Amino acid sequence: MKKILFNKKICIKDSKGFKLKNYKPSETLHYKNEESLKKELDGHKESISILQEKLYAQNKYSVLIVLQAIDAAGKDSCIKHVLTGVNPQGCHVVNFKQPSKEELNHDFLWRCNRLLPERGKIAVFNRSYYEEVLVCKVHPEYILSQNIPGINSKKDIKKDFWENRYEAINALEKHLVLNGTVIIKVFLNLGKAEQKKRFIERIEVPEKQWKFNSADLQERAHWDDYQIAYEDMIKNTTSKYAPWHIVPANNQWVSRAIVGRLVSEALESLELDYPIINEIQKEELQKAKISLENE
Amino acid sequence: MKKILFNKKICIKDSKGFKLKNYKPSETLHYKNEESLKKELDGHKESISILQEKLYAQNKYSVLIVLQAIDAAGKDSCIKHVLTGVNPQGCHVVNFKQPSKEELNHDFLWRCNRLLPERGKIAVFNRSYYEEVLVCKVHPEYILSQNIPGINSKKDIKKDFWENRYEAINALEKHLVLNGTVIIKVFLNLGKAEQKKRFIERIEVPEKQWKFNSADLQERAHWDDYQIAYEDMIKNTTSKYAPWHIVPANNQWVSRAIVGRLVSEALESLELDYPIINEIQKEELQKAKISLENE
Repeated sequence: MKKILFNKKICIKDSKGFKLKNYKPSETLHYKNEESLKKELDGHKESISILQEKLYAQNKYSVLIVLQAIDAAGKDSCIKHVLTGVNPQGCHVVNFKQPSKEELNHDFLWRCNRLLPERGKIAVFNRSYYEEVLVCKVHPEYILSQNIPGINSKKDIKKDFWENRYEAINALEKHLVLNGTVIIKVFLNLGKAEQKKRFIERIEVPEKQWKFNSADLQERAHWDDYQIAYEDMIKNTTSKYAPWHIVPANNQWVSRAIVGRLVSEALESLELDYPIINEIQKEELQKAKISLENE
Repeated sequence: MKKILFNKKICIKDSKGFKLKNYKPSETLHYKNEESLKKELDGHKESISILQEKLYAQNKYSVLIVLQAIDAAGKDSCIKHVLTGVNPQGCHVVNFKQPSKEELNHDFLWRCNRLLPERGKIAVFNRSYYEEVLVCKVHPEYILSQNIPGINSKKDIKKDFWENRYEAINALEKHLVLNGTVIIKVFLNLGKAEQKKRFIERIEVPEKQWKFNSADLQERAHWDDYQIAYEDMIKNTTSKYAPWHIVPANNQWVSRAIVGRLVSEALESLELDYPIINEIQKEELQKAKISLENE
């Protein structure tokens, strides 16, 4: 596996002294205008489409894209714009919602584990096990519904509880990477004023109204708590195996172009090729050909 | 639900006197040339993409595309050409392979049941429970590994065994349709000479060699048995709820254009629209807007 060309401005390789506030949601990196962003994204989509065929044929590596963000940061539209164009036979998207009773009755990684991509495939986790150190950290009462031994009240949820969760996530991700999964972790970094603008748009545009949920406003009231939770999450779970990327999200075309680039570079970093036929298989193919021709 | 505009030449509405041999794999219907086929397919893909958004937003109907065919009929490439362009967040493809031990330890519909599309989504079954009346009918010894009570040897597998399978499939499909799933059943009808041509191509073209399996030749030896099994399957499981479509497959662009048309017409037949906001919800939206503006 070759190294992915990490962009220092967005890839968190080192958690020392990491501060989320140093990353501007309005950052546009080297991009000049929408035209150039769309053009770049089209290029990435073409590479992704070509490389996906080899990924599938080779059946050795898999790709897991983890998308996390605050409401209205553009997760859904990012998936739509970056991955419309892949062959759906080799790609699945999982939209993790409020956990069901069955899911709550298992460890917090279980429901994600069973939907990991198989070899040759791409999976997108639209939200993921990271919700367990985000929404659950902002609302620790949610933890109580998980019936974890020793956790009987909010007072039982101490610092080590979160540290153990980070450790479990890091262990899972290292294990997956060592077994052939490339993990691309993306935090779409939206600004508070931009979220307000997008919420108002959802309220005003009839075709977008169904997307608005008044619970989103309640979550917005916890903005600062979420920023702390995201910062802690990134600090504690960025690793050389699976680093976090902080993708500026105030401009949706900027975030789409960057995510497109991350995915195409991840695929390029793999040594993908069509399966090589060995001598015995070659002989078999020749025999089959003769048998067909002599029918 | 409006009626789908069934094409008499490919849609089997009535099983009386049905003979598979009356359907020509080389049929090109009204299509003149590759150019016009690609153009038509592009149009269908555009409709599918637009309607898929509404299907997803409305969260009421789901679409199940069942693809069955003999080896090399173009199932994979049909999926690629027709569905590359859908938002993968609303579409999944399941490639049913040889059943696992766990799958064999359940009734024959189980593994497919759990992968049905949820409301708002499109699923493609690349092979399906229909294998249970196809490959299992040609190789009844496979049934023995299913440990079904009363079935201890091939002699126990009699006419009523298959009739019960058809009945179970018909009951499942009726149930699904009545609960909001549109089922599009496609049999890609390939000719024997064309299969030979495609097998030889797979053997000769290095990038296609990995697709060739010498077991495919063994299956080709059972060509006539398969034709009988397909005919019986179509005859016994075509219904007003979920009719079979026999899609000529010797010309791949013909089959892709037809499948594109079937999918876009199925989506058009549904009364898809963005969810309607009621008065209470409207009030809530207004309250949320005011609260945001006064922040």
